Amino acid sequence: LASIDLLLAAAFVSDAQYNRNIPFKTSPEAVRLYYLYNHWIMRTATYFFIFLNLSLAVFEEPAVYPLPFLVTSVVEVLCLVVFFGRLTHFAKVTRRNVFWKDTKNICIMVAILLSLTDLAIYGVLRMYDVRSIRWSRIVRPIFLINFAESRQIRRAFRSIRNTLPEITYVFLLFMFSLLMFSLMALKLFGERNLQTAEGLPYFKNYLEIVFDLYVLVTTANSPDVMMPAFDFSSWYALFFIAFVIVNTYIFMSLFLAVVYNNYKKHLKNEIRKLAYMKHCKMIEAFNILKEEEGAQFVVREAQWKQLVKLVAPDISNSHRELLLRISDDEQKGFIDKKSFVQLADLLNIQVITLKIRSHPLGQWMPGVYKSAVSRFLRSMVRHRGFVWTYDVIILINAIFIALDEETPYISYAEWVFLALYIIEILLKVYTYEPRAFFGKNQFWNWFDTLIIFAALTATILNTTLRSTTKYNSQQILDIVFILRVLRLIRIVDSIQRFRVIMNTLINIVPTMLTFGGLTLVVYCVFAIIGMELFHGKIQFFPANSNAPHSLECGNTALKDSLFARAKYCKNNFNNFASSFIVLMELTVVNQWHDILSLFSLTPAVFFANGFANVTVQPAKLYFIAFHIVMVIIIVNIFVSFILEAFFVEYSLEKSEVETAIEQKIQELGMGVQEDELQDEHLLDNMESAEHDLEGEGGTKPQSKGLVFKIASKRYRTVDSLLQRMFEAEIPLEDEGPSVEEFLNLSPTAAIPSNVTSESAA
Amino acid sequence: LASIDLLLAAAFVSDAQYNRNIPFKTSPEAVRLYYLYNHWIMRTATYFFIFLNLSLAVFEEPAVYPLPFLVTSVVEVLCLVVFFGRLTHFAKVTRRNVFWKDTKNICIMVAILLSLTDLAIYGVLRMYDVRSIRWSRIVRPIFLINFAESRQIRRAFRSIRNTLPEITYVFLLFMFSLLMFSLMALKLFGERNLQTAEGLPYFKNYLEIVFDLYVLVTTANSPDVMMPAFDFSSWYALFFIAFVIVNTYIFMSLFLAVVYNNYKKHLKNEIRKLAYMKHCKMIEAFNILKEEEGAQFVVREAQWKQLVKLVAPDISNSHRELLLRISDDEQKGFIDKKSFVQLADLLNIQVITLKIRSHPLGQWMPGVYKSAVSRFLRSMVRHRGFVWTYDVIILINAIFIALDEETPYISYAEWVFLALYIIEILLKVYTYEPRAFFGKNQFWNWFDTLIIFAALTATILNTTLRSTTKYNSQQILDIVFILRVLRLIRIVDSIQRFRVIMNTLINIVPTMLTFGGLTLVVYCVFAIIGMELFHGKIQFFPANSNAPHSLECGNTALKDSLFARAKYCKNNFNNFASSFIVLMELTVVNQWHDILSLFSLTPAVFFANGFANVTVQPAKLYFIAFHIVMVIIIVNIFVSFILEAFFVEYSLEKSEVETAIEQKIQELGMGVQEDELQDEHLLDNMESAEHDLEGEGGTKPQSKGLVFKIASKRYRTVDSLLQRMFEAEIPLEDEGPSVEEFLNLSPTAAIPSNVTSESAA
Repeated sequence: LASIDLLLAAAFVSDAQYNRNIPFKTSPEAVRLYYLYNHWIMRTATYFFIFLNLSLAVFEEPAVYPLPFLVTSVVEVLCLVVFFGRLTHFAKVTRRNVFWKDTKNICIMVAILLSLTDLAIYGVLRMYDVRSIRWSRIVRPIFLINFAESRQIRRAFRSIRNTLPEITYVFLLFMFSLLMFSLMALKLFGERNLQTAEGLPYFKNYLEIVFDLYVLVTTANSPDVMMPAFDFSSWYALFFIAFVIVNTYIFMSLFLAVVYNNYKKHLKNEIRKLAYMKHCKMIEAFNILKEEEGAQFVVREAQWKQLVKLVAPDISNSHRELLLRISDDEQKGFIDKKSFVQLADLLNIQVITLKIRSHPLGQWMPGVYKSAVSRFLRSMVRHRGFVWTYDVIILINAIFIALDEETPYISYAEWVFLALYIIEILLKVYTYEPRAFFGKNQFWNWFDTLIIFAALTATILNTTLRSTTKYNSQQILDIVFILRVLRLIRIVDSIQRFRVIMNTLINIVPTMLTFGGLTLVVYCVFAIIGMELFHGKIQFFPANSNAPHSLECGNTALKDSLFARAKYCKNNFNNFASSFIVLMELTVVNQWHDILSLFSLTPAVFFANGFANVTVQPAKLYFIAFHIVMVIIIVNIFVSFILEAFFVEYSLEKSEVETAIEQKIQELGMGVQEDELQDEHLLDNMESAEHDLEGEGGTKPQSKGLVFKIASKRYRTVDSLLQRMFEAEIPLEDEGPSVEEFLNLSPTAAIPSNVTSESAA
Repeated sequence: LASIDLLLAAAFVSDAQYNRNIPFKTSPEAVRLYYLYNHWIMRTATYFFIFLNLSLAVFEEPAVYPLPFLVTSVVEVLCLVVFFGRLTHFAKVTRRNVFWKDTKNICIMVAILLSLTDLAIYGVLRMYDVRSIRWSRIVRPIFLINFAESRQIRRAFRSIRNTLPEITYVFLLFMFSLLMFSLMALKLFGERNLQTAEGLPYFKNYLEIVFDLYVLVTTANSPDVMMPAFDFSSWYALFFIAFVIVNTYIFMSLFLAVVYNNYKKHLKNEIRKLAYMKHCKMIEAFNILKEEEGAQFVVREAQWKQLVKLVAPDISNSHRELLLRISDDEQKGFIDKKSFVQLADLLNIQVITLKIRSHPLGQWMPGVYKSAVSRFLRSMVRHRGFVWTYDVIILINAIFIALDEETPYISYAEWVFLALYIIEILLKVYTYEPRAFFGKNQFWNWFDTLIIFAALTATILNTTLRSTTKYNSQQILDIVFILRVLRLIRIVDSIQRFRVIMNTLINIVPTMLTFGGLTLVVYCVFAIIGMELFHGKIQFFPANSNAPHSLECGNTALKDSLFARAKYCKNNFNNFASSFIVLMELTVVNQWHDILSLFSLTPAVFFANGFANVTVQPAKLYFIAFHIVMVIIIVNIFVSFILEAFFVEYSLEKSEVETAIEQKIQELGMGVQEDELQDEHLLDNMESAEHDLEGEGGTKPQSKGLVFKIASKRYRTVDSLLQRMFEAEIPLEDEGPSVEEFLNLSPTAAIPSNVTSESAA
């Protein structure tokens, strides 16, 4: 079998493992190029340039850190060149007709072209001192969405797109309700000549009522919007109570229900597709490597080992042997189709190979290390009382930090704590084998050590450069020590009841990145529009500034406004960073009507004829649009995700594949039940057995010095978490989605079935 | 068979139908007393006195409408006597040991005793002019919860109780996170000598930071709480962003997830229990009536008819015949056990008997009514264009209302609309048979007619008493017409996509009553405590009052405070109604920290030694307690309910029982598919067939003048909605909950199994 076939099969397996759906060509050069395309350096570089391109907004006018136009434009061109290169690379890897059918690629090309055109126009106009708008900056998030790597973000966008029709229906009903209530409010309060707390007319204009009540739905102006009517007659409160119940409680919950329902439905489809694609790719790989053995086709052990070495070069020999034993259950020397297909899932299970080693000190000076005193010390450190003692010390430390540190007594106590922590780490390293102690999955050991190291460095630096800054060493120590209090989470985690909650929280973290990306895209677009519309209307002056109008945010129109009185001057669209913070405040939805007053004074660009009361309307639309996109859709999808993650965590049984590998580990007599496993205990048991075997050389998993354990089920990739969500409901063995469902597949997703027919021929 | 046996069986069936679980005695007197106990007048009277008792708080000191102490205390004693009477009645109905084992009854008795004692003490002390607290008022909601009728509210409370342990775990984690962030905030900002917008020290005191950040979790003080730090350095915004993401978004979603998960789980159990109890009671009734027929026991047709007449005296003969045909499928003259058990569900299905009648005008003056002109007029009214025309007219009317009515042109238009609406109703009554037009389920016809009637009355009254009030006739017309715009919901409803949403909304309405009761209980307790603690600290003065300190809400301590500036003076605990509104504002969670400033000046009763900065703390605790109970628990349960209702509506197939009855209607050749049924169309078809049969006398459902239709699946009782939610998952035929589950049953719920064994003996 040619090595190129092996390479091709490895590419399929690797794609299956990471759920990549790139329809690459199967020619030798294309496969090699594909390996290069998927190399982590290439991927990281792409992301680097995407974020560089996005962050240009920080340095361009209006800038947080201004750079000359020449610099930013050169960097932008560089980014675009990189994007073009990446796209060309992708084009070489895939077949031409596939490449040109994919909207993603077209999008990127159009975005590159638009950016270059805009840059050129802007540059030329700038030379002639004509000021124009860099409108192409809105296009930049397209690169984040459309490169093949960002399939999580694309999936989230697809999810939003699928939810839109139903959201629209609920929104229309909601608007109907809002308009009806506004009409009633106009008739009830319009004629009474009431005034708001600021002395403005109350509920006089229909459109303003609609907006006020829309803000009330978000609860941001409660109870202010009610007070004038309530002061007039207590009975009017009933109107607002009815309004809040119907619109805030019922309709907002309905939005969540619709989003959640669609999220679940579409996610299930997506995951079913993914599972099907994975299956196809594994069959593909199998077909390349298969040899005839009796009545069936199989993959020989040697081939299989080479394949695994190619796909996962990092895993140890013993781990590979373990996988082989699981796949080739009866040690027949070959792997059948069914077991082979499982390989992608097997590779995704993190198996930790624990090596039982004696402590280096025990080898260097066995007399001292194995003396009675040393043994007593070590057994003391291993005792759970030791952990508890330090938990109590940390707690006391936290209380000391919270206390007023003016007292010198408390101030000195911090030094005691630092010393105690250093002693703890030294004792632990003395007791446990250092390489095991600083193992890959020993998160808390790393965490503790780094915190103490940082605290020590900070303290030493501070005593050498004494009182150069306002901060004294103690405050730095405090902040570092506060982080150490996080260690208390371990206590929380050891209680069974908390574990579901903690698991949910931990599982959420990787997927947060997807939502981060989504939010970034929305924020970028709105920030860039916001800066163009509202830039420079408001200035922020430091507290003790003597500048004129510093109290009115540099704009006399804001004199005595709530905005200036609440010292909101720094909430502006003057640069990219500020815009992000304002958008964050709008996401949280409070006082956004106050922040809006910022725009009542905006002679908006596209209403240059400047009817004073017309110009506010586009600002309101901008805010409502942001509210709908961010709060009603994205935040609800986020909440849906958390709900679903929690329910899955709550009801999840171990998935089938995992059970198989666990059974095998048990069979091999080396298993350690994960639930009863406490890191300290495990090491404890191993140490007390005092096996001094160096298990490095042994490739067989049976070797006494090796223990396998499945890495905590907690740490998963986003895809595997999502797959877990629906694994129970999806028959992995079936023929995949039906024909109708395939018609709904995106062009990219539909390709591999063609590839199958092609390479099978 | 003795009539007392029939009465007993009817009592069981009735209990099964309404899901009542009262373990009554089976002696003849007890059964008769039980009938009286369940009589609607008795039940209504009980509720009346419960609400009268609760509403006493409006008339007692501090009163909205003050009444002398003598009057309120006499009314209270009267209420307590009624409650005692009701309880005695209940005691006569149930067996003694059951009665005394039930905590509900004990609760009511203790509550009556406490109320009487407190009333006596307060009365005596009052005679000697000693002021004391009416502490027993907190006890009053117990009557609402603990009478046997309020099982919905009790179920909600059980649901809360069951959720509490898990909520507590999440809450502990959340508090841990909050305390950690507060500690970091203290170290980051405490030493910088920053000031808030009001010039107060910023983030200096640990407990205050904790409270500020707790308020930030509810988003109520965003972005104010961030501004001082943000003004100092933009980077500090990151701290708040991290805080909001972790605590507001993740933890609050987690609260929802936990509440929703538990709500679903426990609801399923409750419904399973209910289904089991229903089954038991039907078996009970069957055992009383059964006669031997061949190898099996059956109920004879005559017995069955008498039973149904007793249980549901209101249903028509033809409806009863229909039920019989469904139960006795093969017309054997008896009903077997399996069909008999279904009776409770069959009775709960609302079947409408439509009678095809000719128009009275057609009988009185057939010549005129059946003339060509009249026929054309009627066919015009029946045309869907007629409905559309009036929908457009209503829409135009709505737009006219929104326009400024200063213009006399628009003002006159209103009269045109009123005339048009009257013409519409007259035309419809002319076309459709009046008794069918004003049928029980013709909601919109009633609605339209009442609105127009109200508008007409208002207009006539106003023209006779011209300009006695500030309101002119037109404004009253407007408000009435706005209600008419609600008719547009019909258009919305005719679109398939909107229907799921509308169905959910309609289904939610009855259950809202349960949440209303829950909220009422919580509000009552907190309002009464609030009034005792914070009463009279603040006064409200009308806008143009000349009273001293009217701008500071009558309290000099509030001078220049945000509270007074925002004109919040009417937000106080001075009486029951105001307290409710303040609590509503706290539920909506906005500006509650501002409302709290009300309490910074409260020399709270139980801290009479009056350390100024100590007294704020209990007020804060009061508010946090309210937030946890109301927002974190009850609002989340409400949201869970809406989510679940929506999902059920979305995925629900017709339940089995319903399909059976529908099939039967189809078989009898009289069915009208509900989906294709438009009220107008149905009448249309019937009218055009011109059957002049008076179907009143005919008892057979085959009679040509009768059409059965299942009332819209929309209108359901709370219980049936809940049962629908889980019907698919519960095997109704099985033996009910297992032994373990029975151990968890409440004492009341467990009784009927004893009753079974007793009466079966």
